Amino acid sequence: MPINCLAAHAAKEPLRPFQYEPQELGLGDVEIKITHCGICHSDLHLINNEWGISTYPLVPGHEIIGAVTAVGSSVTSLKIGQRVGVGWEADSCLECEYCNRGEENLCARNQPTCVGRPGGFADRIRVHSHFTFPIPEAIESEKAGPLLCGGITVFTPLRAFGVTPLMRVGVIGIGGLGHLALQFARAFGCEVTAFSSTPGKEAEARKFGAHHFAASTDAAALAKLGSRFDFLLSTVNTDLDWNTYLNLLRPKGKLCVVGASPQPLSIPAFALIVGQKTVCGSNTGGRPAILEMLEFAARHGIRPQVELKPMAEANAALARLAANQARYRIVLVN
Amino acid sequence: MPINCLAAHAAKEPLRPFQYEPQELGLGDVEIKITHCGICHSDLHLINNEWGISTYPLVPGHEIIGAVTAVGSSVTSLKIGQRVGVGWEADSCLECEYCNRGEENLCARNQPTCVGRPGGFADRIRVHSHFTFPIPEAIESEKAGPLLCGGITVFTPLRAFGVTPLMRVGVIGIGGLGHLALQFARAFGCEVTAFSSTPGKEAEARKFGAHHFAASTDAAALAKLGSRFDFLLSTVNTDLDWNTYLNLLRPKGKLCVVGASPQPLSIPAFALIVGQKTVCGSNTGGRPAILEMLEFAARHGIRPQVELKPMAEANAALARLAANQARYRIVLVN
Repeated sequence: MPINCLAAHAAKEPLRPFQYEPQELGLGDVEIKITHCGICHSDLHLINNEWGISTYPLVPGHEIIGAVTAVGSSVTSLKIGQRVGVGWEADSCLECEYCNRGEENLCARNQPTCVGRPGGFADRIRVHSHFTFPIPEAIESEKAGPLLCGGITVFTPLRAFGVTPLMRVGVIGIGGLGHLALQFARAFGCEVTAFSSTPGKEAEARKFGAHHFAASTDAAALAKLGSRFDFLLSTVNTDLDWNTYLNLLRPKGKLCVVGASPQPLSIPAFALIVGQKTVCGSNTGGRPAILEMLEFAARHGIRPQVELKPMAEANAALARLAANQARYRIVLVN
Repeated sequence: MPINCLAAHAAKEPLRPFQYEPQELGLGDVEIKITHCGICHSDLHLINNEWGISTYPLVPGHEIIGAVTAVGSSVTSLKIGQRVGVGWEADSCLECEYCNRGEENLCARNQPTCVGRPGGFADRIRVHSHFTFPIPEAIESEKAGPLLCGGITVFTPLRAFGVTPLMRVGVIGIGGLGHLALQFARAFGCEVTAFSSTPGKEAEARKFGAHHFAASTDAAALAKLGSRFDFLLSTVNTDLDWNTYLNLLRPKGKLCVVGASPQPLSIPAFALIVGQKTVCGSNTGGRPAILEMLEFAARHGIRPQVELKPMAEANAALARLAANQARYRIVLVN
């Protein structure tokens, strides 16, 4: 039976209804009947081919929630009817050292869910069971999807770069990623500061867990904060005055980017040398990290704030996201 | 009794003989009769006030070796006649969290040996005993000095950024710092590659411990190496094609700068995000790291290759260093 989906047929074109015949269900694959699919900013980048890696027809969507409807003959960990999710990665070699260590996101042959293969703006999807995650009962289906890309994107750096409860953490940019990062950092036990260019977001930022709020574009006000942060997580895809933010770091502090600024980061060598500082990046996370993240989010009540839209209104939802109007994550509902 | 030394009286002026009355010997201080003092590239920067922090008269020298000639009344760890050394740091608050942890180099009030206080191009120096290090018997006096600044500068990043024996390490720039870094990385058990713009240094680089040698300025040849390095240490104070070097890193790899390039590092965000990579910096090290480094160097036969010059020939020696002719570190002898 063909899969019904929405696809862009060329860069920057609106999505149109499309059908495709799914690949044969492999031994390790599952088929999922999709109930919800979150919209991530990278769906926009892919539709518009802004990263130069898109292939058309392109079916976006990689924050997928649904129920298992079929399993390959070697799948023992998932059952028909079980509620599961799929995130940014849909496959990897499962043989290299990174896959062996559960860092499939670092595998050179990892395959994004909607690059060269159809994604989750659809009624069904087939994907390898290794990249299919049971959703903890406590997490509502309409809020689970954004955890699988947005959530893991901000959780991984806290985990991988050694953030501890004793640290002061700043989250730069309070949007789809940032509002989740505030919640994770707060649940990590950290002192949390939200940096935003939108003063009106202060109250919500505090609701998400920020102890403090700072105007991200007021260099003079930022300088007054002093060198007090152990970890700064930049979720914005704009150019920042990186040196100002490096000056906000304490010795041994780390600035991690998960948003891609258009221009290269400009980093004075002395800003790293004096105080043994770090600039680093991170994207998504491997299977063990995703399972930990889901359990941690369930335990701490970490949830995206979502706007629900029918799948048929995907184009309008994408336009809303492109206009920075989403508060804070849009989820399409079948 | 006044201390006889060599001092610059203004930026870029030659050193001239100078005398000063030493500060009173504090409770925790020692006086050292200097036998040897290494010349570091930062002495040149300070003499020329290239970092804007110099005060004149400026007595350079912070790779000091000598014998204790007097101790303050509270000093119990050092004895008169004992052979000791002093490096980049001469003092710190000894009260803050960084000092408490033995990371005095990260103390906001740490005082460099020859910034605002007289250094080691002299017959004697007075300095706090906490910043005075016993020299292991195995290390010759003429070779010990450069370990205290050059050595600790390249040892600390290996220690602080988690370099393990299983890693592939590249050292960029084979000079005063780099030739020591090759030795430390080899003794750490790593696979070591030397990157140099001087093909003639290959044989010496291999002698210092490099398994491989690469031309640091041949971008095409560098790209052929592939993404194979876990840790790259840049010791050069020139601008590099940083993106090329980031591409040489494996996932989770780190590029650490201990040399200060004139222009800010230009780092594309995706070069960090894809592969969870890190750019970091480091300078010198705290007391525990220096003691470990000296013991490690003694155990593994790690020594600078030095050219010895009489103290009176300091100006000629500085000119030789400025012309990149030193192979690889110059030590002044009293």
